[in-house]
This record gives sequence, structure tokens and C-alpha cells, in this order.
Amino acid sequence: MDMTVWFLMGTALVFFMQAGFAMVESGFTRAKNAGNIIMKNLMDFCLGTVVFVLLGGGRMLGEDAFFGLIGTPSLRLFTDFTGYDWANFAFNLVFCATAATIVSGAMAERTKFSAYCIYSAVISAVVYPIEAHWVWGGGWLQQMGYVDFAGSSAIHMVGGISALIGAILLGPRIGKYFKNKKTGKTEVRAIPGHNIVIGALGVFILWFGWYGFNGAAAGDTAELAQIFGTTTIAAAIATVSTMTFTWIKNGKPDVSMCLNGSLAGLVAVTAGCADLDAIGAAIVGAIAGILVVVIVELLDLKLHIDDPVGAVAVHGANGLFGGIAVGLFATGNGTTPLKGLFYGGGFQLLGIQALGVGAIALYTVILMTAVFFIIKKTHGLRVTAEEEIAGLDSTEHGLPNAYADFVPTVEALSGDAPVEVTGTVPVAEAVEVKSIPTFDQPENGLKMTKIEIVCKEARFEALKNAMMAIGITGMTVSHVLGCGLQKGRPEYYRGVELAPSLLPKVQVDIVVCKVPVSTVIETAKKVLYTGHVGDGKIFVYHVENVVKVRTGEEGYDALQDVE
Amino acid sequence: MDMTVWFLMGTALVFFMQAGFAMVESGFTRAKNAGNIIMKNLMDFCLGTVVFVLLGGGRMLGEDAFFGLIGTPSLRLFTDFTGYDWANFAFNLVFCATAATIVSGAMAERTKFSAYCIYSAVISAVVYPIEAHWVWGGGWLQQMGYVDFAGSSAIHMVGGISALIGAILLGPRIGKYFKNKKTGKTEVRAIPGHNIVIGALGVFILWFGWYGFNGAAAGDTAELAQIFGTTTIAAAIATVSTMTFTWIKNGKPDVSMCLNGSLAGLVAVTAGCADLDAIGAAIVGAIAGILVVVIVELLDLKLHIDDPVGAVAVHGANGLFGGIAVGLFATGNGTTPLKGLFYGGGFQLLGIQALGVGAIALYTVILMTAVFFIIKKTHGLRVTAEEEIAGLDSTEHGLPNAYADFVPTVEALSGDAPVEVTGTVPVAEAVEVKSIPTFDQPENGLKMTKIEIVCKEARFEALKNAMMAIGITGMTVSHVLGCGLQKGRPEYYRGVELAPSLLPKVQVDIVVCKVPVSTVIETAKKVLYTGHVGDGKIFVYHVENVVKVRTGEEGYDALQDVE
Amino acid sequence: MDMTVWFLMGTALVFFMQAGFAMVESGFTRAKNAGNIIMKNLMDFCLGTVVFVLLGGGRMLGEDAFFGLIGTPSLRLFTDFTGYDWANFAFNLVFCATAATIVSGAMAERTKFSAYCIYSAVISAVVYPIEAHWVWGGGWLQQMGYVDFAGSSAIHMVGGISALIGAILLGPRIGKYFKNKKTGKTEVRAIPGHNIVIGALGVFILWFGWYGFNGAAAGDTAELAQIFGTTTIAAAIATVSTMTFTWIKNGKPDVSMCLNGSLAGLVAVTAGCADLDAIGAAIVGAIAGILVVVIVELLDLKLHIDDPVGAVAVHGANGLFGGIAVGLFATGNGTTPLKGLFYGGGFQLLGIQALGVGAIALYTVILMTAVFFIIKKTHGLRVTAEEEIAGLDSTEHGLPNAYADFVPTVEALSGDAPVEVTGTVPVAEAVEVKSIPTFDQPENGLKMTKIEIVCKEARFEALKNAMMAIGITGMTVSHVLGCGLQKGRPEYYRGVELAPSLLPKVQVDIVVCKVPVSTVIETAKKVLYTGHVGDGKIFVYHVENVVKVRTGEEGYDALQDVE
Repeated sequence: MDMTVWFLMGTALVFFMQAGFAMVESGFTRAKNAGNIIMKNLMDFCLGTVVFVLLGGGRMLGEDAFFGLIGTPSLRLFTDFTGYDWANFAFNLVFCATAATIVSGAMAERTKFSAYCIYSAVISAVVYPIEAHWVWGGGWLQQMGYVDFAGSSAIHMVGGISALIGAILLGPRIGKYFKNKKTGKTEVRAIPGHNIVIGALGVFILWFGWYGFNGAAAGDTAELAQIFGTTTIAAAIATVSTMTFTWIKNGKPDVSMCLNGSLAGLVAVTAGCADLDAIGAAIVGAIAGILVVVIVELLDLKLHIDDPVGAVAVHGANGLFGGIAVGLFATGNGTTPLKGLFYGGGFQLLGIQALGVGAIALYTVILMTAVFFIIKKTHGLRVTAEEEIAGLDSTEHGLPNAYADFVPTVEALSGDAPVEVTGTVPVAEAVEVKSIPTFDQPENGLKMTKIEIVCKEARFEALKNAMMAIGITGMTVSHVLGCGLQKGRPEYYRGVELAPSLLPKVQVDIVVCKVPVSTVIETAKKVLYTGHVGDGKIFVYHVENVVKVRTGEEGYDALQDVE
Repeated sequence: MDMTVWFLMGTALVFFMQAGFAMVESGFTRAKNAGNIIMKNLMDFCLGTVVFVLLGGGRMLGEDAFFGLIGTPSLRLFTDFTGYDWANFAFNLVFCATAATIVSGAMAERTKFSAYCIYSAVISAVVYPIEAHWVWGGGWLQQMGYVDFAGSSAIHMVGGISALIGAILLGPRIGKYFKNKKTGKTEVRAIPGHNIVIGALGVFILWFGWYGFNGAAAGDTAELAQIFGTTTIAAAIATVSTMTFTWIKNGKPDVSMCLNGSLAGLVAVTAGCADLDAIGAAIVGAIAGILVVVIVELLDLKLHIDDPVGAVAVHGANGLFGGIAVGLFATGNGTTPLKGLFYGGGFQLLGIQALGVGAIALYTVILMTAVFFIIKKTHGLRVTAEEEIAGLDSTEHGLPNAYADFVPTVEALSGDAPVEVTGTVPVAEAVEVKSIPTFDQPENGLKMTKIEIVCKEARFEALKNAMMAIGITGMTVSHVLGCGLQKGRPEYYRGVELAPSLLPKVQVDIVVCKVPVSTVIETAKKVLYTGHVGDGKIFVYHVENVVKVRTGEEGYDALQDVE
Repeated sequence: MDMTVWFLMGTALVFFMQAGFAMVESGFTRAKNAGNIIMKNLMDFCLGTVVFVLLGGGRMLGEDAFFGLIGTPSLRLFTDFTGYDWANFAFNLVFCATAATIVSGAMAERTKFSAYCIYSAVISAVVYPIEAHWVWGGGWLQQMGYVDFAGSSAIHMVGGISALIGAILLGPRIGKYFKNKKTGKTEVRAIPGHNIVIGALGVFILWFGWYGFNGAAAGDTAELAQIFGTTTIAAAIATVSTMTFTWIKNGKPDVSMCLNGSLAGLVAVTAGCADLDAIGAAIVGAIAGILVVVIVELLDLKLHIDDPVGAVAVHGANGLFGGIAVGLFATGNGTTPLKGLFYGGGFQLLGIQALGVGAIALYTVILMTAVFFIIKKTHGLRVTAEEEIAGLDSTEHGLPNAYADFVPTVEALSGDAPVEVTGTVPVAEAVEVKSIPTFDQPENGLKMTKIEIVCKEARFEALKNAMMAIGITGMTVSHVLGCGLQKGRPEYYRGVELAPSLLPKVQVDIVVCKVPVSTVIETAKKVLYTGHVGDGKIFVYHVENVVKVRTGEEGYDALQDVE
């Protein structure tokens, strides 16, 4: 009775993880697809519910059939309402949706929304219920003594493997990988997420929800307390492990990798959270924090499989590792009386765990390859290149912009197919003098000039002060992107060197009449000069006239701001 | 004893819903009012607490008086401290604040903050406690057998009806509706929310909190489990229902409508969450998901009542429907022994529910019309047009910008009163040649030219590559908005066709000297040409001089970037 | 047994507060440091876990030694796994991390990440465990009857005092304070947070988590209910108190101060949440709401100590006040049988509380001054000025931009060291006429002109409509910042008058050929004129050519958009 309340509270926490997934995935991808990602994370839970209510719930929780391979569907939900185990139902529902939601991260930013709906439904209806029945529903793995307390393998690895297959069959996002024509090698481009803060919030929400995820099935409060302890230790140590590893490797502690590291630790401890002690949890966390970085980089830099949010590394690799880890570190005092290899139990439990993980992985590979292959060949998995570049929010959902009130940056897809310009290109030559038209000039005869200064943002303050010091009373400032090749200290995003071809710059427009152009230019040069590439450029234009709206003054007078 | 802990945990969850409301409302409105919306959602809870502590709590929970119409105020909170039912107090407090907070959404972006404080206090002090006493405090509706387990009618419908009255008396936001002079019809303009991601997070938080909202009053764990089941099923199916409905109707699944759909399902199942079975919850959810879309469009497209976040459709319409639905689908095994119409109970329960919903609705209409009318006539409800256009953050709270580090887009209020330009407009004629002033020219005599290319963002990458191919080594890129009439596939935001008069474009500025202008123009034309409207324009300007800051080079030399 | 579940659920809630801290701190600071702040809030929990597991847990929970001054380290976590009090461990762990995380807010935007890691570890390993042992672990303060139920002093005041010492030793952010050369006074510049919405979400999350923070240690449900009541009342009334106070003082209710006010109320009631009644909680809240504003302004305006998020005022001042308040308002029916001064208990409890608060404060001052001083002298506390201006995300973590898809505004650090421009500045004189180069002119001989209108955003809509009315068919619109001195109604951000030297403006570019320039200018003047400073300016440039990409038309023809 007591634990039922906790069980339900845990269910609510697991539901809340959907919010975490939605924030992590949208934060780590581009703004133009944010609405689509929200929609996917909302719908896999909702579609999953529909499917699970109709079919899956019975299949997982129902009576055993075919020697423990599948459960038989059950209609007790509808026939025996009051006697139905609602608590167990709600809990399994949210677990099932979690398996489905993991996939969407790796396939983000390029998958057809309709294809997504189909495979989410299939995962909820077929894939998850069967293997979950093996592990928890009384199926053959459970009978054999396989331990996966809260689903490192049954949920996360299944999601991660499905994600991997989906990402391979989909192919990478446009601009992610491209052939360097000189070296002939494939180069990797970092595509930074659009909101690291909301992504981090997602990780905190997931961690918070994980206390429910791992703890909901606890049999008593002592076990629950232990689960809280191991879960916290593994996640915290995994994060520290990732930080240390990226700090040593790249010279700086990587923010988004550390966020992945926390999740990796949580995934890895999920199977053994009720069977590990503090030392075991710490070791599992330490390994998970490094494993996630290695797999992210393996996929991205070596295999060129594009997984925008690291779902394969976080859920797939660490889910698998978590299942195996039980066979290494189980104390024998938890849910299984068997001890892990390093706790003196020999290879018995390790063998069972390896068999279980292997069987589930094989099952998932076969089934999901078939599922994605069939969808690809019939319905189609991927949006068109045009839709992908425009963004799925607008093309798939008619949402022009998830952030309607902010100015988006211009994206440079360095790897996009370069346009071949053919034909002869005329050479530069002195322009001949022809007749020119004339134009009105303010009557006082003073020439007006616009000086456009493009410089580094960090120097703007000094420039502004200097301009005011020489009597410039007004200027217009805007943010532009400078395009050119400039080298500085390399910056890394998730282990990939960033090669930003568009650098943020400030453009300051000044129109002068009384103050000589040369004064402005010389002052600007003095202030902006550092001797490094990228100090800036100054452009000079003729201005025909200036009008001040409030006073109606023109020309020279319009530029005298004395207010 | 057991359930008290859950009851309090549920209270905390319901409190957390304030965060959900704040995120939904700010995400679905414009950035310039985000701080004001936060402030309102914070203050209605806080002001509500003050008022509820002083008056309301007693009125709702106190002894019955006047034949069950109102409760008598109670001072037990202060006199009998240790014996006071704190748990019930805290729970009712957060329920009361929820009723008040619903109203703010429909009245967002144009209400005086002080007026808001007044009506929030009135709702907490008078409106809610009386009708809540009818339903839950032992009043006449409860005595009659009226069932509203967690407040579809007593909280959400009351909030939604108040929101409707407020929105009508306030009038629409400037630019929301405008007369088309040609057709004479009123046209509707979509005003997209500024952050769909944070709005979605709000929906997830609300859903999470709803397990506390619906479940907190559960008497035992079996009932609680059932409530979790029906709540989840109704919300999930409502979301799928909205997705399907908008997909069929508009051709694309609408993100923000689906988010409203989830909330609609939650509101509708709130009354019957302990009295419905899985089938009943599913039907209620399916209807709610469609109802919310129909009512949003009815209000916006037909009645031209401006409810920025859909509060009337979500809370008002579905709150009413939820109250009635108990009379249709109650199983008779829940809190009431009576069965609903479709469960063989005839019209008895349906009649009670209809009477209850009608009485609460009537009560709310009368009281809130009076409240808003009096505020409007004495204090004033609405800010000035100038304040509204500038945004409430700055005018009501002195907060210049809730997002100080981002560049905001320029808003086009197509429906804003067009300025009549009178007087004769001179016709174009060939400009006469007059004398012109001259200016310095770099000494090598080469003419320098600035070429300004305004094009679609999607073509920028190709343009950049092509420019580099013809020897352009530097360019300045910025995001601009192109103003003009361009037609493409219509896009819908919440059922309203978007007519964006400001289209996002990229402006690329290139200054050339050696590379002939004609080369740049011909190359750009080749790259940008698609034959569709909006391919772009190229503008050519004379440049007087260019200076490179680092080297001090001028003119031709300054343009030779070899680094 | 029953309360253990709640205790663990409370632990999860307290963990979730890390998300709240991360959102508050990043929301209230600048976008360029958002990743760094996320990282710090993630790591202090994770590093704290590592340290606490190794050392601190034992020191706090272990056996008493040295007359209650410190606890002896314990290895029971590792030796006696199943008998270990995991629940208490997890709870103390998250409490400890909270103490460490408070410090990061006051030291935000300028601290070395490595220095941060060091002092976080020291707080977790040494500072917190010792004084927490005094208060809760059976140490001398607990033996004396000192009451600090959930840590107003033991956690918040310790964090706040450490934050104060850190902020003083670090010095203010560049540009925060600067000498006005004319008056000789130090002027204060408001540096607005980059995302008030996410900051507000953080406050809601913290408030939600606080029910766990204050409630987790409750002995029974009656006490828990009381804690929920006092916590809610104090926080709500503090918020109302702050709103009223800022409204009266500055003329407008301040959003970000009210968010701080909520937290101030929560901090202040933390010590006495189980010992106050409703009236006591209300008074404590009312005082806290004013205290936080006074201390924020004292630090910023008078002492010029730069605390970006108000950590000292919220946690330090109100933590101290909360400890004292127990001695004033304790009812004698809670955890202590002694009554507070205002409840007839005389000075006994007040004396104990004052002694306890004083001892903890003194201990913290001495220890943390030493810690920060040693770090400053050996490792260094602060990043370089260049790194600080560039932002810690990029310099400390190699994250170029936490918001990669949005255009950032240009920051004006008014107080930055002004550049001295030396040498003679030539005076304006009439420009002499020299020979000029000529350029191609479209063959029809019509002159083309670009008219650049810079105006207030609020007038853009009218301008656009007017331009369309006189036959302008296309324009390019962008957001720029106008630099100049313009005075309006003063705006306040956290009590500091904003002196924005960069005002948001809209720039509208129109190129005309047929429509006379004078028509455009006169129309624009008519529309934009209000007679106030800042009505705008109009600049006129000669255009050499215009090309329409789709049709290939040039000059006059290219400007005729009839589509």
C-alpha cells in the first residue's frame, strides 16, 4: 500500500522525462526544427498511449505464451475495470514511450513527421512489448535470472540501437559531412545546438525524473534509498569523468558533452541500480562518462553517422554497458542472489547478462532494420533537401518560426554542394570615364560622407568612445557576419573543430559633414588596430542628403545633434 | 496517514503548475510582454495567498450558512494553529490560484497590471470560494450529488468564462483584426508566440502537475491509480485527436494546437477522472481534442474575440464539457453511485451535472461581468495604444527587454490604422543634370563598387561559394526583412493563414575593385535564378574609398585579402 | 516507514533545485556566459558528490569528536553497505551541493572555471560538513538548542556569506561601475539578464523544490503539512511585499526583484518552517521581501559590490534573518519548546539563535576568506579582461555561442576605459572640388536613389503603409541600434536607472527611380514627425544600378514590382 503511492509518483516523474527529452533534443538541434522536435516528443507519448492501450499493454503484461517469447494480448483494461492494475499499466506506458522517444533524437532535423509517427507506433505496439515481456513480464530472460532492474537494456539500449539503425538508413544532415577537394578526405562540420540552456534544463529534468524511472519499481524503502544512492553517485561521477576526459583531450571542459555524460551515467546504472553498491556505481559512472565521449566521436569523426544529440552513445552504448555491468559488479544482496565477476561470483551472472543483452540487441537490430527499411521503401523516411534546408517547422507543420520575435542568424552550410561557375571571367581593368548623372546637393555646398566601419565586437566600445571624443554625435550600429578565412585558436563543439566561415562583426555607420572624413578614419584606425587578422575594414560612400525628421533640417544642419 | 503525504506532494505539483501556466502564456505571446506575463503568473498565486489566508479559506472550508450558498469565514487558521487542517488549506490555496491564473492568458498583452491585480484578488476572495463551497465545501451542489472531482467546472470553466468576459470587455490586441478595404470584410492576423519551445515545456509541466491536480484528493491508492490512468488516456488521446483533426483540415499537423489539445484533454477529464473508465476517458479525450480547435477558430475567425493563448477554448469550453461528460460516462463505481447516460443510468446524473454546470456558469457570468465592468469604468482595464505597441514589459514594469542580448525582429502590424497621405504626389520625370560635388578617389584610379545582393536565405550558401570561386575574398552578411507582396504556399498558425508582409532575406554586401562588377552580377544572377518570385535584387553603389585597418592600405590594396 | 518515501521524494525535489539555480543564474546574466553557468551548476553538484562520498558525508554524519566541533570521517558507506543510511546520505548530499551552488551566482561572468571547481570542492569537503555537524549532526549548537530546521543559516547564509567574500575579492564585472569624469562620482550601470523567462522558470522550480528542501526532514504528516503552510505563506507574502515596495519606490513593480523576493521569503522561512505559525510566517515573509531589495541596492549602489543575481541579498541577508527570526516568532509548539521573543519567550531562544548565527557567520567568514585568498594568490580567481569581454563560454569551454541560431545584440559597456584620442583634430572646411571618376548609368537615363530611413520601431507600421500608398513596392527592413543621447522616462532594472546608449531602431531602405525622392522624404517626415527627440533621420544615396534576378531587368524596370 505504502509503495503504491511512490510507484504512482514515480510514474509521474517518468512522464515528466518526456519534457526532459523534448528540451534536450530541441536545445541540441537548430531553431528551425524546434517545433518539429517538440511535436515528436509530444506525439510519441500520445501515440504510444493509444497503441499501448489497444494492444501493447496486454502483450507485455498478459499471460505468457509460446514458451515465454510473447505475452498474449489482454482486454482486461476494458472488461474488468475496477480489478485492473492501473498503476502497473500507467508505469509501463511511460516506460514504453521512453523507448520510442529516444529514437527521435538521432533522427532529428531530417525525418518525415509521418514516418516518425509510424515507427513510434510500431515500437510501442510490437518492438518494446515483446522484449519487455522477456525481461519483466515473466518471459524467458526473467526466468533465466537476467537482471535489468529499470531498463538499461530493455529500454535505453533498444532505443539507442533503433536510433543507430535509423540514423544510418536516413543518412546525415545536409552540410554535416563533406569531401575536402584538396585532401580528398571527408571533413566533419559541427552543427551547434540552438539553445544550450534549454538543453541543460532538459538534462536536469531527465535526472530528476530518473529517480522515478529507477526507483518506481522498488519493493520497499530500503531498496528505494539504495537506488537513490547508486543513481546519484553514478550520474555525478560520470559527469566528472566526462569533464576530466574532455578537459585533458581538448584542453577545455566541454559543456554539452558533460550534459551527455550525466545522462550516460544514469543510463548505465539503470540496470544495476538495485544491485550495485557505492563502489560499483562509482566505477560504472566513471566508465560511462568516458564511453559516451568515445562513442560520440567514433560515430561522428570515424563512421560519419550523424546523431545530432548523441542518442546512440548515451542510450545505446551505455545501455548495453549497463546491462553487462550488472554481471561485473552485482553485490548479491540486491534483486539477484548471484554475484558479479569482480565481487567473486565468477562468470555465471556475467554470462546470463551477456546473453540477455545480446539477445535483446539482436532482436532489436533485426526488427528495426526491417521496420525502417520497409518505411523507407514504401512511405519514405526523409524529407526533401529543400524542406530540410528550410527547416521542418515550416515545411512539416506550417509553423514559420518557433521564435517569431528574434532575428535568426544566417547559416553557412560549408559542405553544401558548391555551385560551379562556368564561362570566362573578365579580368579587372581600369574603368573608363563616361558621362554621369548629377544629383541635388545641399545648398551650403558641404560634402557629406558615410563612413562604414566593420570591426570586431570587442572593440566597439572603444570605437564608440573615440568617435564621441572627436565630435561624432550619432551613429547607427548593427550586427553583421563577416565572411572570410580567419584563423584563431581552434574551438571545439562536441569534439569537432569548428570552422566558422561567418564571423560575428559589428558594423558602425557614421555620416559626417563638418568632421573631416580623414579624422574619422585615422581615429578608427588608431582605436581598432591590434595587428591581428580581422581588425576590420572601413568603407567610404558619398551621401547626397540627410534630413532630420523632427526639425526638417537638411544636410549639414541635420547632422548637428545638440540635444 | 498514508494519503496525507501524497496529498501534500500533490499540492506541490499543483503549485508547480504555476510555472507551467507562466511558460505557456509567455511562450505563446510576444517577447515584448514576457516579463509582464511572468509577473502576472507569479502574483496571482501570491496575491491569492494573501487574500485566501485573510478571507477565502474560511469562506470555502468554513461552516455552511444560508442554506449552503456560502460558507462562513473562519479564523481557525490563526486561533487554533496546531489543530488547523494545513494540508487542506495549502491544497485549496493552489487550486484557487489556478482559477485566477487562467484568466490572465486570454487578457494577455493589453491589460493594465494594476487592473490585473485587482481582479485576481477578487477571484480569490469572492468568486472562487463561493462556488467551490457549493461543489466541495458541503454546499447545495454537493448535497445534490453533483460530481466534479478535481474542478473541470469549479476551476477551469470558471477561469475560462472569466477569461471570455475579460477578453470581450478588453477588446482585441492592436493589429489582430482589421477591415480589408476592398472586400469590406474583417481579416484576421496571426500573431505568433515568441517561444514555442518554452510554451511546450509549460504544457509538459502542466501535464506533470495535473497528476497532482486530479490525484491529490484521491481517497486511496486504488482510486489514485485509476485517476492516473484516466488522466493519461484522456490527455494522450486528445492530443492525437487534435493532431489528426488539424492534419486533415489544414494539411499539416499544427504544433501549437496539439499543445492546446493536450491541455484540453486534461481539463475535460478533470471532473470525471475518478468516475470514468478507460473507454470513457478515451471518448472524452477524443472529443476534447476537436472541441478545442473548433472553439479557438470560432472565437478567432467568426466572433473576433482575441484570446492569445486559447484559454477560453481550453479551460472554458472543455471545463464545461468535462462537467457534462460525467453525466454521460460515469461508471457508477467511482465517487458517485449514479451511472451516466451511456452507461445505462438514464438522465438523472446528466440532469444534475447540467444543472450544476449551468448554475456555476451563470454565477460566474454575472459576477465577473460586474467585476470587469466596474474595473473598466473606474480604474480602467486596458493600457494605452502606445503602451501596448511598446510592450508591457517596458511600460508597466520598466523592464526594457526580457531578452536583452538578442536582436528582436521588426513587427509588422498589418492591420494597424493605415496613415492617410494627402496632397498631390509628384510624378516621376527625368532628373535634370546639375552641378555635383566631387570627392577623393584612391590614387591608382581604379573605381570601387559596392554590390548589395538581397536574396533568399536558402540560396546564400550557393551564392557564397560562387563568389569565392570568382575571386571575392570578403563579404558582409546580414539578416534583413524584405517587404513586398509575395505569394507561396499558405502557412497556418493556429488555424489562421499567415500573411507575412515581412519576409526574411539575406543581404550580402561585396565591395569590388579588381573583379568586374558585371562578373559579380552575372554570377549572382546565375546562382540565384530559379524563375520564382522572390529570387532577389542586386543594387550597385559607388564606393569612395576602402581602408584596411591592420595594414593601413587603402583602395584597391585594401580589398586584397590573401591571409 | 511512511515518511521515508517522502524523505526520498524530498531529496529528488532538492536535487531538482539545481535546475532552478542553473536557470535563475543563467537567465539573470548575459548570454555569452550561459554555458559556463550551466556547467558550474552541474559540476558543483557532481564534484560535491565525489567529495562528499569520499570525505564529507562521514564528517557530518559520523561520530562526534573534539567536543562537538567536528564529526569523525566514516567509511560505513563502503564497509557496511546494506546497513548504511542511504536516505540520509542522499539528502545531505543535495543539501551540501546547494550551499556550494549559491556562491556561483555572485561570482558569475568573471570567475575562472578551474578556480570555481576548487572552491566548490572545498565547500563540500570542509566548510559545509563541519558547520552542518554543529547544527544537525549532534554538534555543540544542536546540543545548545539552536533551531535551524532546514538551513536558513547552515546552508543559505553560509552560501551567501561565501558569495559576498568571493564577489569582493573578485571585483566587479568590467563596465559595471565607472567614474563619471564630470562629477567624480562612481556611476552604476545595469547589466540586464539575457532571459527573464528562463530566470522566472528557475524561481518556480526552486519554489517547487523548496517544499522538499523544507519538508524532507519532517517527522510526521502533521508537521509536514505545517511546513507546507508556512513555506507557502512566507514566500507569497514576501513576493507581494517586494512588489509593493518597488512599486512605491520606483513607480513600477519590478519583475526581477519580485522573483528575488519569492526566494528571499523561502530562505527566511527555512529555519523556522516547523516552528512558526501563519502569522509568524507572514511577518517573516513581509520583512524578507523588503530586506532583499534594500540589500541588493546597498551592495550595488552604495558599496559597489557586484553580485549579478542577488545571491548575497537573497541567501546571505535572508539566511541570517531567518535564523534570528526563529528567536522572535517560535511558537514553542514546534521542534523547540522555547518560545520566541514576540511569543512571550523572552530572550533565551533569541540569544541562542543570535549566538548560533553569529558563530556560523564568523566561521564562514574566516574560512572562506582564507580559501578565496589562497586561490587568488596561487591559482588565480579571475579570467583576463579579454576573456571576460569575449565571454566565458567561448574562452573557458570552447563553446562559441550557447544560442547559435540567434543574432546577438551589440553590447555597449559605457563604463569601459575610454580611448584617449591624441593629436590635433582637423576642423571642418568646405570640401574642394576635384575630378571624379564616373560610372555606368542605366541607359534610360533615369537617376536611381536609395533612401535610408532610421526611425522608431513603433512608427514602422505607419511608415510602411504610407510608402505603399505613394507607390513604393519594395523595401528592405532591418533592426539597428541608434547611438546617441536621448532622454525619456527613466527605466529601472533592479533599482538601477538604465542609461541605454544604444537604442533599438528600425532602418528602412528604399530605392526609387520613378517616385521622386522628395515625395518619399516628405511623406516619411509627415508620418514620422511627433516633435520628440528620436523621430529619426533620412539619408539619401546615389544608386548606380539595380538588377532584378528573376527577370534580368536593370535600372528603372528592375524596380517595378507588379507581382
